[in-house]
Amino acid sequence: MKTDLDHLMSQRDLDAIVVTGLVRGNPALVYLLNGAPISHAIWIKKRGSEPVLIVGSMEREEARGAGVPVILEGKYNYHQLLLELKGDALAARIAFFGRIFDDLGIRGRVGFYGMEDQGSAYCLLQGLNAALPGVTVVGEYGPNLLGEARATKSAAEVARIREAGRRTAEVIRETVSFLQSHAVDAAELLRRADGQVLTVGDVHAFIRRQVVLHELEDPEGFIFSTGRDAGIPHSKGTLTAPIRLGESIVFDIFPREAGGGYFFDMTRTFCLGYAPPAVQRLHDDTRSCMEAVIAQVTVGDEVRRYQDLTCAFYRQRGHPTVEESPATLSGYVHTLGHGVGLDVHEEPFFREKTLLRPGHVFTIEPGLYYPDEGMGCRIEDVLAVDESGGVHNLTDFPYDLVVPMG
Amino acid sequence: MKTDLDHLMSQRDLDAIVVTGLVRGNPALVYLLNGAPISHAIWIKKRGSEPVLIVGSMEREEARGAGVPVILEGKYNYHQLLLELKGDALAARIAFFGRIFDDLGIRGRVGFYGMEDQGSAYCLLQGLNAALPGVTVVGEYGPNLLGEARATKSAAEVARIREAGRRTAEVIRETVSFLQSHAVDAAELLRRADGQVLTVGDVHAFIRRQVVLHELEDPEGFIFSTGRDAGIPHSKGTLTAPIRLGESIVFDIFPREAGGGYFFDMTRTFCLGYAPPAVQRLHDDTRSCMEAVIAQVTVGDEVRRYQDLTCAFYRQRGHPTVEESPATLSGYVHTLGHGVGLDVHEEPFFREKTLLRPGHVFTIEPGLYYPDEGMGCRIEDVLAVDESGGVHNLTDFPYDLVVPMG
Repeated sequence: MKTDLDHLMSQRDLDAIVVTGLVRGNPALVYLLNGAPISHAIWIKKRGSEPVLIVGSMEREEARGAGVPVILEGKYNYHQLLLELKGDALAARIAFFGRIFDDLGIRGRVGFYGMEDQGSAYCLLQGLNAALPGVTVVGEYGPNLLGEARATKSAAEVARIREAGRRTAEVIRETVSFLQSHAVDAAELLRRADGQVLTVGDVHAFIRRQVVLHELEDPEGFIFSTGRDAGIPHSKGTLTAPIRLGESIVFDIFPREAGGGYFFDMTRTFCLGYAPPAVQRLHDDTRSCMEAVIAQVTVGDEVRRYQDLTCAFYRQRGHPTVEESPATLSGYVHTLGHGVGLDVHEEPFFREKTLLRPGHVFTIEPGLYYPDEGMGCRIEDVLAVDESGGVHNLTDFPYDLVVPMG
Repeated sequence: MKTDLDHLMSQRDLDAIVVTGLVRGNPALVYLLNGAPISHAIWIKKRGSEPVLIVGSMEREEARGAGVPVILEGKYNYHQLLLELKGDALAARIAFFGRIFDDLGIRGRVGFYGMEDQGSAYCLLQGLNAALPGVTVVGEYGPNLLGEARATKSAAEVARIREAGRRTAEVIRETVSFLQSHAVDAAELLRRADGQVLTVGDVHAFIRRQVVLHELEDPEGFIFSTGRDAGIPHSKGTLTAPIRLGESIVFDIFPREAGGGYFFDMTRTFCLGYAPPAVQRLHDDTRSCMEAVIAQVTVGDEVRRYQDLTCAFYRQRGHPTVEESPATLSGYVHTLGHGVGLDVHEEPFFREKTLLRPGHVFTIEPGLYYPDEGMGCRIEDVLAVDESGGVHNLTDFPYDLVVPMG
């Protein structure tokens, strides 16, 4: 949580942290700006002090939404530096940070975070490290301070994710009703308006519209895939494929609040009309696995324990898993879950030794994939751990496989 | 253009380039993957050779859309390295790149590009530079190889931008009709359904829906702002503000093709019913400026020349400009334009010495801002330079200020 920042800085022996970049595609910055709708920023915090936000003058009004003191970039006059340094943008940027650090009294170990072009960051951070006396630039590889802070959600953040989930489930409900509203001929769904075969592309267009009507957006797209595509975890579906009775349909939808807010992420598997026995078995095994794992979720666990449980469960039912065959493309082929927040995939990740903590919000998503047999199945819910360690499922939608057709 | 990559590598004396990261929010990678819908990738090209793409096995099918040879990540077995190196993710990632570089025969000067967490990139690129014999890691600060390649569009790219522009103009047309469909009382627009005052928030909701109906998306949002907000360039509008006759409305809309494609970016300023003389003057000056600048656009120009022209034009009409008062918040307060492509703001930027070249696609957007007088005005079109140096305006929408109300 944001209230942990000083503690997390102490753990890393950091005197200050700097978060920069374009705000879009930069969840660490979105997080620290409280969603204020600005395009780029420099956010700086000294340990034990309130943060400050440096923005361009054109965004001075929007910057107020961040709820921290704002300094206009013009104060440090980058353009004057650029002229003085004869157009050397790197030298000017280093001198610009020098002015900011002097003004704010920043020295010691300074951690840098936020998305930037990697080659550009490499040049700038090396340059700052060499040029600024008394400043040591610190990078973190892998799980970092901001990821750790973001991983534990406040009650207000959980409420936003739950509400995004409520609207996401509405989109699934509406999509199921949309499918049910079609005529069927020779096991294919037909559009009533023109009698043409309903395609995966038609359903994608319907889903996209419903997402927006619920004040959500889908920057990552979604998966609505059928048959063999359903047997490939990240296939989003073949747009020209017809919708057929009895085929496995994997519908994995992960929109966020419109305007760049919190994500939700849930998956259901459907068969229209009836389920062939082979698909029914995948679904039964996956649903049982889901229920068994959710029953085990306990604060203090190493999260990867649930991955081990899942592999053991599926293996016992005769499916290959990534545990014994890391390169398998059949059976259980991925990890079990991930944190959800301002990024659709964030801490805690399930392969690490992370311990499950109060405030964690994460998916559980077992699944089975048999592309060569033209089928796949996944079920995914979002769970949240409250302050007292209580585990709550934020996902309100039944697991049922078969969608009855008229 | 992509066909320039070898030439651009030679100019920089690079033996290979590596582009990595999540694909979302990473236009360099979207560009090189030809929009293939995968989540993360490592794209590598040796000078003079075809590139290769390294992806996770779950995305092997989607990766085909990139049109380059695909290698599955599993070949280099990161997880085995992570075990061998006792969970040290940085050391394992360095060793993983070592395996890739050995396998592909990569050595010499290697440029790294693509969006990553900056602290993480700093650690990794320093580590690679130190650990890989015969490899020198090269970063570029500021305008870089990928930005330069992307700045000149192929005919196919221009066609996509033009089509995104056609649909964007449709959204503006529909929004104007939506405004005109309202009743007016005491100079405020009223919703016919319930007689309540129409707010900026209502119009935003309408615009969001139309964007999606045209198979566009607006990851950056849009600006539909009135009165004083229209006088602040980046204000997106106050959602609770009523829509009033005679107020300046700045409508700046910059969506992209749904699914993460090419952007368009255009602005019109409207007054509903009538224009007060002060707003009419801003609009007349801006429209004349626009027409004067567009008439000057010529291949081979330094693009910042148009910024100088604009400042001179506005100054002559009595407006303050950023040229003589860099910190001004009144008058002409920003730069004139920017390239448009897979990023809404990309090369060519108008403050640099970039020369206008065939293939450049860019905005021209003069504007005047008087927040203390409660008004602002901006007009923005997208222009493209063809192979023969011909200049084409891709924007098909009149500049007219006044929207007649029934």
